[in-house]
Amino acid sequence: MKKEKPIILITNDDGYQSDGITKLSEVARQHGKVVIVAPDCQQSGKSCAITHSVPLKMTLVSESEEMTVYSCNGTPVDCVKLSLYTIFKEKRPDLVISGINHGSNSSVNAVYSGTIGAAIEGCVNNISSIAFSSVQFAAKLDLEHALPIISQMISDVLSTPLPLGTLLNVNFPEGEVKEIRFCREANARWSEEYMPYDADAYLLAGEFHNREPEAEDTDEWALSHHMASVVPMLVDHTDYNYLNKLKYKYGK
Amino acid sequence: MKKEKPIILITNDDGYQSDGITKLSEVARQHGKVVIVAPDCQQSGKSCAITHSVPLKMTLVSESEEMTVYSCNGTPVDCVKLSLYTIFKEKRPDLVISGINHGSNSSVNAVYSGTIGAAIEGCVNNISSIAFSSVQFAAKLDLEHALPIISQMISDVLSTPLPLGTLLNVNFPEGEVKEIRFCREANARWSEEYMPYDADAYLLAGEFHNREPEAEDTDEWALSHHMASVVPMLVDHTDYNYLNKLKYKYGK
Repeated sequence: MKKEKPIILITNDDGYQSDGITKLSEVARQHGKVVIVAPDCQQSGKSCAITHSVPLKMTLVSESEEMTVYSCNGTPVDCVKLSLYTIFKEKRPDLVISGINHGSNSSVNAVYSGTIGAAIEGCVNNISSIAFSSVQFAAKLDLEHALPIISQMISDVLSTPLPLGTLLNVNFPEGEVKEIRFCREANARWSEEYMPYDADAYLLAGEFHNREPEAEDTDEWALSHHMASVVPMLVDHTDYNYLNKLKYKYGK
Repeated sequence: MKKEKPIILITNDDGYQSDGITKLSEVARQHGKVVIVAPDCQQSGKSCAITHSVPLKMTLVSESEEMTVYSCNGTPVDCVKLSLYTIFKEKRPDLVISGINHGSNSSVNAVYSGTIGAAIEGCVNNISSIAFSSVQFAAKLDLEHALPIISQMISDVLSTPLPLGTLLNVNFPEGEVKEIRFCREANARWSEEYMPYDADAYLLAGEFHNREPEAEDTDEWALSHHMASVVPMLVDHTDYNYLNKLKYKYGK
């Protein structure tokens, strides 16, 4: 009996026509049946936002044996949720992949990222989920070194699913990728975050500050040393160390 | 020398005129100088979303010795970011509190919550931050049992700041609060998340499913047993257990 092809749901936050999602889908098609459900416009910085006040719809863009493409008028998380409720109601995808984002989602950027948001939503639904991002912002991404790594990771996770509740946040440096580094999120923040727009309005801008540039076990360090960073992330935010301290302190 | 009053930044996702933020500010004023910077409209479900395409502005609503109120045309995270860049540029707040949300932010709800998003942003900026939510959805909240607990928690955290990188997610049951329970996030999800709006559009709805209703150490269990739940949350999402397994497996 021929084994059925795995189903791979692809989304992103840059929109269904972006170069990153196109290149990601070309790689993913080597591993299964690809369904793209991605925003119909730019949805960067949407984090895990959901839409509750506007009716959501998915619009069929193209359909073939190997790949179906829908656009959706929602956030990246909406794309995952609505597709699970509609086209995947009977048979869920084997893998959710998000990206390839135009711009890094390392360290604190993961907090605000719609690319990561979509992968978190896949993980909430107990589907293995990976977010891919490149530090490049260009409309056309040079992913010569990244694509073979992505292909291998898709293959690996399809054969050995991720632990429930854990997703992968993968970032690629510009140009050569010397190696893949498993690492933790760097402790970072943005400063001077706005620029004046007019007398009393501001546009988001800002500078990125890594609070621990010397720490060699972080994603920021890996990226600045021509390595791809792979950070396993938890959906569960609980701080178990501090929880134990609180329980001990208050005797509960 | 008289000690300066602590500065408390209050925000939420239900808007600056909501009953929850009004009641929270009344309690907070007993402990310091309160500045409200909150959305000018409903921003529920915005998670940690940031606005980068629209100019943001803060509008002064009222000002007195004890309390200043601004509305802002952004998300809850925008409110925290923009206020830190403008009114708090010289002197940062001692505490960020978010809420009191009309609706629970326990378990997986924390992922999507703008109330939690604002507290995460405070924490990213190394300011002690607490999110408060009630399971009640009503326009007017009955918080007779919750407000004394909130007052005590504000006092405690002002005297002993939270660890850097950790915030508190506090939820209150309806009516009586038998005790305060320190707990972890329950593993939960939403199902059947939409209802038809017209032939091809959907509105968010859904049912909440606790995957572990018997687990007594979760926030859901506490809330269903008339306890207030306090979950310490980490900004750092790294799954250190799985990271160590990956490093071991790949010898890196």
